[in-house]
Amino acid sequence: MTLTNDLIAFTNAQPNGDARNVMQLSVLDWAACGLAGAAERSFDGFVTANATEGPCQIFGGGTGSPTNVALINGTLSHALDFDDTHFAHIGHPSVAVVSAALVLAQQVDGSIPDVIDAALIGTEASVHVGLWLGRDHYQIGFHQTATAGAFGATIAAARLLKLSDAQIRAALGLTSTMAAGLKSQFGTMGKPLNAGLAARCGVEAALWALSGMTSVDDGLEGPLGFSETHHGQNNPTNLGLGVWQMETVSHKFHACCHGLHAMLEALADVNVETETIQSIHVTTHPRWLTVCNIAQPRTGLECKFSYSQTAAMALSGINTGDIEQYNDDAVKDQSLTLLAQKVAVTGDETLSEMQSKVRIVTDVKDRTVTHDLAAPMPLSVRKEKLLKKANGLVGSEVANALWAAVQGEDLNIFTTLLNAKRAH
Amino acid sequence: MTLTNDLIAFTNAQPNGDARNVMQLSVLDWAACGLAGAAERSFDGFVTANATEGPCQIFGGGTGSPTNVALINGTLSHALDFDDTHFAHIGHPSVAVVSAALVLAQQVDGSIPDVIDAALIGTEASVHVGLWLGRDHYQIGFHQTATAGAFGATIAAARLLKLSDAQIRAALGLTSTMAAGLKSQFGTMGKPLNAGLAARCGVEAALWALSGMTSVDDGLEGPLGFSETHHGQNNPTNLGLGVWQMETVSHKFHACCHGLHAMLEALADVNVETETIQSIHVTTHPRWLTVCNIAQPRTGLECKFSYSQTAAMALSGINTGDIEQYNDDAVKDQSLTLLAQKVAVTGDETLSEMQSKVRIVTDVKDRTVTHDLAAPMPLSVRKEKLLKKANGLVGSEVANALWAAVQGEDLNIFTTLLNAKRAH
Repeated sequence: MTLTNDLIAFTNAQPNGDARNVMQLSVLDWAACGLAGAAERSFDGFVTANATEGPCQIFGGGTGSPTNVALINGTLSHALDFDDTHFAHIGHPSVAVVSAALVLAQQVDGSIPDVIDAALIGTEASVHVGLWLGRDHYQIGFHQTATAGAFGATIAAARLLKLSDAQIRAALGLTSTMAAGLKSQFGTMGKPLNAGLAARCGVEAALWALSGMTSVDDGLEGPLGFSETHHGQNNPTNLGLGVWQMETVSHKFHACCHGLHAMLEALADVNVETETIQSIHVTTHPRWLTVCNIAQPRTGLECKFSYSQTAAMALSGINTGDIEQYNDDAVKDQSLTLLAQKVAVTGDETLSEMQSKVRIVTDVKDRTVTHDLAAPMPLSVRKEKLLKKANGLVGSEVANALWAAVQGEDLNIFTTLLNAKRAH
Repeated sequence: MTLTNDLIAFTNAQPNGDARNVMQLSVLDWAACGLAGAAERSFDGFVTANATEGPCQIFGGGTGSPTNVALINGTLSHALDFDDTHFAHIGHPSVAVVSAALVLAQQVDGSIPDVIDAALIGTEASVHVGLWLGRDHYQIGFHQTATAGAFGATIAAARLLKLSDAQIRAALGLTSTMAAGLKSQFGTMGKPLNAGLAARCGVEAALWALSGMTSVDDGLEGPLGFSETHHGQNNPTNLGLGVWQMETVSHKFHACCHGLHAMLEALADVNVETETIQSIHVTTHPRWLTVCNIAQPRTGLECKFSYSQTAAMALSGINTGDIEQYNDDAVKDQSLTLLAQKVAVTGDETLSEMQSKVRIVTDVKDRTVTHDLAAPMPLSVRKEKLLKKANGLVGSEVANALWAAVQGEDLNIFTTLLNAKRAH
């Protein structure tokens, strides 16, 4: 079997219950990230430049055609770089796929369960294509969020449009000649754009296959195909064999550098009077010391790369999942600054890059807490953390309404919420 | 100097007169190919699927937004694979670039000279980017029409939108993460689509840079950039140094396989009574013998791959530039069949792939004619041949009106002609 055949067979597969529960949370997270991304307003010019007539809801207001809204929402939901990540292939699975699924569900008058099923099948397809392309593809410079993401978006779109097998094959062939996206865009608006382009690619490939466009039969794995031209490794994959990659997707719970997350998770259960703290000893993988160890941050942005500042924030009860907490005033907060000065950071090669250890010495106690980001997370914990994060991003009213909508049937209730302006 | 810097400097260069004269003919040829491509109707579903509101003229009727019409017209003008070709980098320079230039000229209320200047600067940029990427890029499977074409379309769009240097840089950065297109699509509708996607890419990159999108500064040549990821060779180029590649562009004058063109050109000056012909001896490079040497074609399509049939057509005075001549009835024409039976084809390694030799033995004379497609062609000859080709594609009335419009100022006169249905 070729990967193309596997993907065609998988398009109408029965979603797995556990993975589907995670996907439901990812759709909530995607919506909260997209609304907050739109509220940042930095992409307003881009949204206006791509305005069209159409039935699909744009984050933060307005509607447009399926293709243009896939482009816009895919971009906005990745604007904060706060959406879910899969470390198997290293990519953000939801931004391209959910954006594609949602516009086509609106087009075909589908339900919320239709969106979640298509999003799960699409994100699974995406991670598996990414694993099949492999690390060579990533290392040379391709952005899996965009490349693998485009194939995942195509499968989600194909499912919602109920394409025939031949049409799915054509759509995958078209995607093979359209999918693109480079990591050289990181740090620019081109990075979120890559996600939007992948979402649009999936929608267009499926709609064009439906309209009668033909393409090559083996666009992914064939001669002169996507893998051959894009440094793919053609690794074996287990798509459709009971392995559901979305069960192990990572959600970002802190609006700062990923190197700080293990420490922040370790501190999540610590509840001490900050006045009693004498010293805080953070141990982390040495790689992070040159990445996110600004001892005295001077701006909100620098806070996002500071062990001392974010440790002080966490111990002071500040929601590190709230993007607004990383502002230029926070670095002037005397009590935070005093606490941050008590933090010492040490590298330790015996820890993995996903592990952290924190020793907190108070007047009365000396305790050490640890965390490993690779540890499995029970669904209930994941849900609690994602709702808290959504609260920080869009306010509790919208966050709770989004979560209720994601658990319901009616797509309109959900899409109407995407029209919401930032709540606080 | 990096190629990005060269391209920015070249965007507002003064067009060269000789190259500009050729570009004017290429715009005529592009329009005739596009109108004939639309009349074939095979892309009707695709056109409908991409219909939008907007001011830009679609080949064969309808209007749409600049981005969507760039996509549609770029695709339709390459639908017949009959448009111009540059063998320096091996790509079709006009389909992406002229399609992009025309929609933005309509958007900014520009003139025909604006379109021709932007198209020339864009096609030059495209061929130079293609030469810089090199044969490795082409051989691994990338379609230069689409990849180099996207960068050329970006430069043409940037010139028409009068982007600042910083905006052109951003647009090229965005194109570096969007440009795509594989040769594996050849023989499918994905091949013309590649040209349309390149046209849209240029228009979008320029419009998005204008809207405030940022990107990487050195998207073409930088780390993780387009060349590094897409098997580029970074060959030295002489863009802007007085070398105008469009002076040596090839136009297709025969609606059949390229391997037949040298023979057909050699026969162009032969004027004999077909009844007097005893035998026709075609000598060609051996490579073509397995490509286009169907001795007794059974269909119109097979005629396009037949030395004997097309030689008979040419000697009988049939316009081999007229796509309609390659039909299923032509193979049943007794006089053509009799003449075709007198053709013998021989391979000769001493000829180049662009050369052909034909010996025609009649009752009264034994003559040999030759042609080399690489030979320079005087502008007046090129013009005469292209007008004849356009006549065959869209009828003389539309062809002559297009040619008059291309030499004029008023863009509306030209775009109104693109609304024309096939004239015969």
